[in-house]
Amino acid sequence: MNALGPHAPGRLITFEGGEGAGKSTQIRLLAQALERAGLPVAVTREPGGTPFAERLRELLLDRKTQDLSPLSEALLFAAARIDHVDKVILPALREGAFVLCDRFTDSTRAYQGAMGGADMRLLELLERIALGERQPDLTIILDLPPAEGLARASHRGGGGDRFEARELAYHEGLRRAFLDVARREPIRCRVIDSTRPKAEVAAEILRLVSSRFHAPLLDGLAAR
Amino acid sequence: MNALGPHAPGRLITFEGGEGAGKSTQIRLLAQALERAGLPVAVTREPGGTPFAERLRELLLDRKTQDLSPLSEALLFAAARIDHVDKVILPALREGAFVLCDRFTDSTRAYQGAMGGADMRLLELLERIALGERQPDLTIILDLPPAEGLARASHRGGGGDRFEARELAYHEGLRRAFLDVARREPIRCRVIDSTRPKAEVAAEILRLVSSRFHAPLLDGLAAR
Repeated sequence: MNALGPHAPGRLITFEGGEGAGKSTQIRLLAQALERAGLPVAVTREPGGTPFAERLRELLLDRKTQDLSPLSEALLFAAARIDHVDKVILPALREGAFVLCDRFTDSTRAYQGAMGGADMRLLELLERIALGERQPDLTIILDLPPAEGLARASHRGGGGDRFEARELAYHEGLRRAFLDVARREPIRCRVIDSTRPKAEVAAEILRLVSSRFHAPLLDGLAAR
Repeated sequence: MNALGPHAPGRLITFEGGEGAGKSTQIRLLAQALERAGLPVAVTREPGGTPFAERLRELLLDRKTQDLSPLSEALLFAAARIDHVDKVILPALREGAFVLCDRFTDSTRAYQGAMGGADMRLLELLERIALGERQPDLTIILDLPPAEGLARASHRGGGGDRFEARELAYHEGLRRAFLDVARREPIRCRVIDSTRPKAEVAAEILRLVSSRFHAPLLDGLAAR
């Protein structure tokens, strides 16, 4: 049985939000701050994080993979997540690391559940199978208007994957879905306004992580 | 919601059994007999049957995909099955076809459940999600001693996929798992001794299909 390991001493921090919200930038900045403070850190992402899950990621994000039902997608994400938790996240938590993960279960809830219409009770069951009783210790939802996020994401080039290619109304719906999760789980989730300059966003995240986990991070912040 | 379509007029016949039991040969012979009798027939397989599911098949059978948990495997097979039922099996059943499928849910029960240890209640839930309340109309389990089947399969060359590569005791366990399914569902499942000459096996399958579905197949048989 897979599970996040209820007693593993590390901390799982997940980053959620729409396209172009700055997740990978903020993860990099937080990882640097944690490392400067001498704390063990592991950075990973979903879908992906293991060789098998990365191959599923290619399949899932491929524009050629058309018309897959949200339910099939949710099952694939769950399969990849179990592999990821087993081989990457849980071992790192057991070693006491801060695990920073770019997208996790809330993306499944938003994309396949709220927007795709996959049965929420099934999604909950799949979460329990992958995580056991433990949820992420902190989820940072980077929030900004989708039009702004998509404009940022388009600067990355490459034409975007098949989720980015959907129209604006879809991304507005995603935003509401993430904010809904945050309203329902206000202790685990924190919504952060991501329209601000990225150094400001990074400083707020660092203060949040520092106070939530009593980590000696403010020195790292002061040294910037 | 995906489902096999409780009222679709076609018939789903699945072929199960170990490696080298003669599934693809017997499917080909039955398809020919059905076509000779002027009946609509569709031949497909799992994992696979749609472009997406075929890509998952490559991933699942790849020797490089190591150490995937049986639970992850079961979720992937379920995701592929939903796509397959939606896009291939259900449309063919709606048109009244005999759908002949090389492996189906019982392979998941045997490989991931009985042999892999994936929770049987979860597998049942995944079956219901993919199939609704309908099960295959007939399941033919081709039975022979694994040593014989593996010797046959090895003549196909290519070194076998990662399921074929496992040791004999594993394949003995699989055989017991398929026979167990047949004991528990004696109306849906029929075990056929596959050590006999293939024409003899084909004739028995044809008699079975003919009587089960009142199909005018005996003419086709007589014309051989």
